Amino acid sequence: MINAAIVGGAGYTAGELLRILIFHPSVNISWVHSSSSAGKYVWQIHTDLFGDTDICFTDQLNFDGIDVLFLCMGHGDSRPFVEGHDIPDSVSIIDLSQDYRHKDSSDGFVYGLPEANREIIRSAHKIANPGCFATAMQLSLLPLVNSGILKGDVHITATTGSTGAGQKPSATSHFSWRASNLSVYKAFRHQHLKEVSETLHSFQPDFEGKIVFIPERGAFQRGIMAAVVTQFNGTIDEAYELYENFYKSSAFTFVSHDPVHLKQVVGTNKCIMSLEVCDGLLLITTVIDNLTKGASGQAVQNMNLMFSLGERTGLGLKPIAF
Amino acid sequence: MINAAIVGGAGYTAGELLRILIFHPSVNISWVHSSSSAGKYVWQIHTDLFGDTDICFTDQLNFDGIDVLFLCMGHGDSRPFVEGHDIPDSVSIIDLSQDYRHKDSSDGFVYGLPEANREIIRSAHKIANPGCFATAMQLSLLPLVNSGILKGDVHITATTGSTGAGQKPSATSHFSWRASNLSVYKAFRHQHLKEVSETLHSFQPDFEGKIVFIPERGAFQRGIMAAVVTQFNGTIDEAYELYENFYKSSAFTFVSHDPVHLKQVVGTNKCIMSLEVCDGLLLITTVIDNLTKGASGQAVQNMNLMFSLGERTGLGLKPIAF
Amino acid sequence: MINAAIVGGAGYTAGELLRILIFHPSVNISWVHSSSSAGKYVWQIHTDLFGDTDICFTDQLNFDGIDVLFLCMGHGDSRPFVEGHDIPDSVSIIDLSQDYRHKDSSDGFVYGLPEANREIIRSAHKIANPGCFATAMQLSLLPLVNSGILKGDVHITATTGSTGAGQKPSATSHFSWRASNLSVYKAFRHQHLKEVSETLHSFQPDFEGKIVFIPERGAFQRGIMAAVVTQFNGTIDEAYELYENFYKSSAFTFVSHDPVHLKQVVGTNKCIMSLEVCDGLLLITTVIDNLTKGASGQAVQNMNLMFSLGERTGLGLKPIAF
Amino acid sequence: MINAAIVGGAGYTAGELLRILIFHPSVNISWVHSSSSAGKYVWQIHTDLFGDTDICFTDQLNFDGIDVLFLCMGHGDSRPFVEGHDIPDSVSIIDLSQDYRHKDSSDGFVYGLPEANREIIRSAHKIANPGCFATAMQLSLLPLVNSGILKGDVHITATTGSTGAGQKPSATSHFSWRASNLSVYKAFRHQHLKEVSETLHSFQPDFEGKIVFIPERGAFQRGIMAAVVTQFNGTIDEAYELYENFYKSSAFTFVSHDPVHLKQVVGTNKCIMSLEVCDGLLLITTVIDNLTKGASGQAVQNMNLMFSLGERTGLGLKPIAF
Repeated sequence: MINAAIVGGAGYTAGELLRILIFHPSVNISWVHSSSSAGKYVWQIHTDLFGDTDICFTDQLNFDGIDVLFLCMGHGDSRPFVEGHDIPDSVSIIDLSQDYRHKDSSDGFVYGLPEANREIIRSAHKIANPGCFATAMQLSLLPLVNSGILKGDVHITATTGSTGAGQKPSATSHFSWRASNLSVYKAFRHQHLKEVSETLHSFQPDFEGKIVFIPERGAFQRGIMAAVVTQFNGTIDEAYELYENFYKSSAFTFVSHDPVHLKQVVGTNKCIMSLEVCDGLLLITTVIDNLTKGASGQAVQNMNLMFSLGERTGLGLKPIAF
Repeated sequence: MINAAIVGGAGYTAGELLRILIFHPSVNISWVHSSSSAGKYVWQIHTDLFGDTDICFTDQLNFDGIDVLFLCMGHGDSRPFVEGHDIPDSVSIIDLSQDYRHKDSSDGFVYGLPEANREIIRSAHKIANPGCFATAMQLSLLPLVNSGILKGDVHITATTGSTGAGQKPSATSHFSWRASNLSVYKAFRHQHLKEVSETLHSFQPDFEGKIVFIPERGAFQRGIMAAVVTQFNGTIDEAYELYENFYKSSAFTFVSHDPVHLKQVVGTNKCIMSLEVCDGLLLITTVIDNLTKGASGQAVQNMNLMFSLGERTGLGLKPIAF
Repeated sequence: MINAAIVGGAGYTAGELLRILIFHPSVNISWVHSSSSAGKYVWQIHTDLFGDTDICFTDQLNFDGIDVLFLCMGHGDSRPFVEGHDIPDSVSIIDLSQDYRHKDSSDGFVYGLPEANREIIRSAHKIANPGCFATAMQLSLLPLVNSGILKGDVHITATTGSTGAGQKPSATSHFSWRASNLSVYKAFRHQHLKEVSETLHSFQPDFEGKIVFIPERGAFQRGIMAAVVTQFNGTIDEAYELYENFYKSSAFTFVSHDPVHLKQVVGTNKCIMSLEVCDGLLLITTVIDNLTKGASGQAVQNMNLMFSLGERTGLGLKPIAF
Repeated sequence: MINAAIVGGAGYTAGELLRILIFHPSVNISWVHSSSSAGKYVWQIHTDLFGDTDICFTDQLNFDGIDVLFLCMGHGDSRPFVEGHDIPDSVSIIDLSQDYRHKDSSDGFVYGLPEANREIIRSAHKIANPGCFATAMQLSLLPLVNSGILKGDVHITATTGSTGAGQKPSATSHFSWRASNLSVYKAFRHQHLKEVSETLHSFQPDFEGKIVFIPERGAFQRGIMAAVVTQFNGTIDEAYELYENFYKSSAFTFVSHDPVHLKQVVGTNKCIMSLEVCDGLLLITTVIDNLTKGASGQAVQNMNLMFSLGERTGLGLKPIAF
């Protein structure tokens, strides 16, 4: 059994991680740290876990016997935590924040996108788990940069659910505002663009186009759908061949010949994409669950790879469907 | 033209009041007071009013020439405001809080439920506007107490939209939590029970039953549906006759022979109810918009009565339908 | 491994059953029958299963080697199917329709509510799986009738998600109509009342009260919340003791001292209820997922009991939470 | 008073038209034709109009005294209707279908986008009312083509509410499917592209770029948000000047310096757009209500222009806000 510990246990990504690890056949949850909720049962915060676990939050950090440590704190809090604590080398770290994602400040953390880095992840000791939008965007474009054929500007509109903004209440997460609503935010300048660009250029250094990214807030709780338009000189069959070939051994990423919809993947660690070709353009429509494949599920996928488990272990998750 | 002023202008009920008064043919909005938003355009807070008005919030109170003052502050703030300011007698007051609703502390305010008190309201100078749940519950039961035939316990389950809880973000108003969700709160002890009980007893002093009220939070933004079950010795036709007779001259309250649904009334000042009789029991299913008939629309309806306007003036509101 | 077969494979309950059985560690899905979809992949209908299975629907029925047959057809179709086919005695049957639920026409089918009939189910060969509303209502009242203390009328309002109405599009399942809406249907006369009454009387034959049941259609996809009010001479602590004692060995039914909300159970086989006592009345607020505990999850729970598996096998399901 | 008649009265656009015309101070609704619903009250189909009107549907067509005829039938039904009936010249026609929108088959119908054609509409006798997506796209781009500076490809992603697909139930309008969901349809080839292209070229004949349009189905009932990205050599202030200058006398189209959101316009005839400039690109984010400005509200706006009424007459509509 892998002994796992979680820091930042009261947030959304920790909740999703707990939902997975509690049922994971090869994991024992040693402790869940939360300063704000120490002493409470985990289900007092993640109320859907009532009846599934009697773990309590702790404010103690004890790394003895811990095999893997998940950092689920806010962006900017992971680095001070890692630098401020004497974490034994025997503890693998998976950080769900953006603190170690970029090459110029990775400090030995491997970028944990299995579809791009599977073999490196297998032997990694520290993982920077990708961003949710970044996961959807990269998975949409990897087959193209892998073949060195991405060119021109890429136009991406992607819509995220409300859980993407975390659990702290705000004006734009208020039900009265968000229900039946839609809006744009951080157009052209979303922070995930940097990690996307780094991955694309690591595959295809000569890519010179812009990634024009318009993020939107949707009237749903979970999930991201990205509509990605780029130049493509080929037929739809050539597109299918390129994408299916690239993802043929993927555990969770699939190419659909039917149109996709967001709820195909909600609650699961899957990524499904469909393709359309028209007049020299390729549309990739890609759906993931932002909390699962976009965060905590991918973290467990990385853990499985690091600990030589089957990649889908504990990740055969019932979809919500509706 | 009636010169109207609003205090507490940045909240939900003030927003709804503005949406109505801006288009009201007999009203001029003199000023909208808000300490927190003074100097801003009204549409910077109530963003849906962009393009409809260029009024700004003010932090000045000037009662010269004001005909009617709407108090849209939080519960408990109206009484100190009224007592702390020298409001001229020429200014009629309509208070949307609960501060003056109860007989033992009404201080001359008339309870503003037109279906119960229409003639008194016409000559009133100060109005305590009813609560939203209270409106739905009383309209469901008025024909029975008016005939003196309410008996036994009354069982009411009523579900409210998220706007019923105000605009301050909270855990239970977070979109991630509330979307597709349902929950009970304040069972048996909702604060609106007192005003309901007072009205029922003013019509039928010998009513001795309990009002068993289970309020619920629904996954919608606007509206209240109340399902009210009580004893009834009669046929469905007798029930229709009783209710239709009572409401035959109502401007906004209607009895439907078809099943009702919440969105029949959303966005409007209407109240629609349907009736079913079975085995000595009567079910009244009643729908209103909590912000309109349950708050600001009813406030305008009261203003229309007080100022001898047609009761529906400025309240012919396009329903949202979907 | 248990060899399972499904008839009526294209409907909602079959979809949910497949979502569970595909990941069930002790089940092999031998075939999934559907006249309308024969030849198609299962994921062409249940699109969220894309990437999880490559089973195709069949229009052939072959009972050789089948251990358990799930009937997921419409109400009224199961009995003709059973009577019209020569199903070997070696095949256990779990019927999700209402065809065999009532005592006067059960024909040897055992009513499959484990909290009421666990030991009988263990040795049963044919199971009539309970209705979704019926499950929520019975679980709310079982501790009372088990102690013989249910008395007076019981008032129940319960709200169901859109999946409760099946997948056939209709006016009241149209998104434009149902989103942000709420309505009552089949008040006083829902068909599940009969199975509820039979169970209650089997525990407490002298119960003489009425079950006054008001079903509602909610603006959510999955789940049922029932608010059940009944007489109770006791304190809240006595209520907790009674309920917790009754459910202390239940695998999926839990008593919460905190208020419950619907999404605590969505996606899972759990039933969670909270209790409130006031003035001689007990409110039981009970939440289940109508497709899981209210249908297919309970069917698998029954299968687990019949085949001597751990009751939670394959039913440790990640909640949706949001 | 203008005597108005409606054909195709049972559909979504007719319902919205009735919601407006019933309260329009200068309109008398002479009759509402519906073959399917003849004899029923209008509120039996458009249930939210209960209490607002007692008009019944008719299956008779009598053009005597009619000033304006609204055609609210399905696409492809208007032309046969017009050609098959002897409609007097004294009857103005406003067609909400796409039958007369294109230049090569307009047969004297004027394209009814007031922001493009206001003066022509004033003297028109027959109007082809624009499509909903087409309205949002054109309003986003008119100031650019008006100045002759649209160049390069335009990338548009626009998301529509469920009412955009009409009231006939279908798989993708089923609440269970659509709630909390998102999907792409008709990418690159939506039928509204043709009318958009014609308008753009009528202003700027030398425009040679492509309109790359990705339509999406959102989890909301009403509204369209379009995110439009195009080349722009200028500052944000120059963009504001261009757009505000173009729309300065518009009755319903407004440029916001704050980010827009869909519910700012839901229930109203307004169009609000925000602008962002980055690195040679301009993002126009545009919101309308698909049933109102995108259909029936714009039809009434056209009627107001044709009959020399104030453009906003009867269109001062309370927004839904939430």
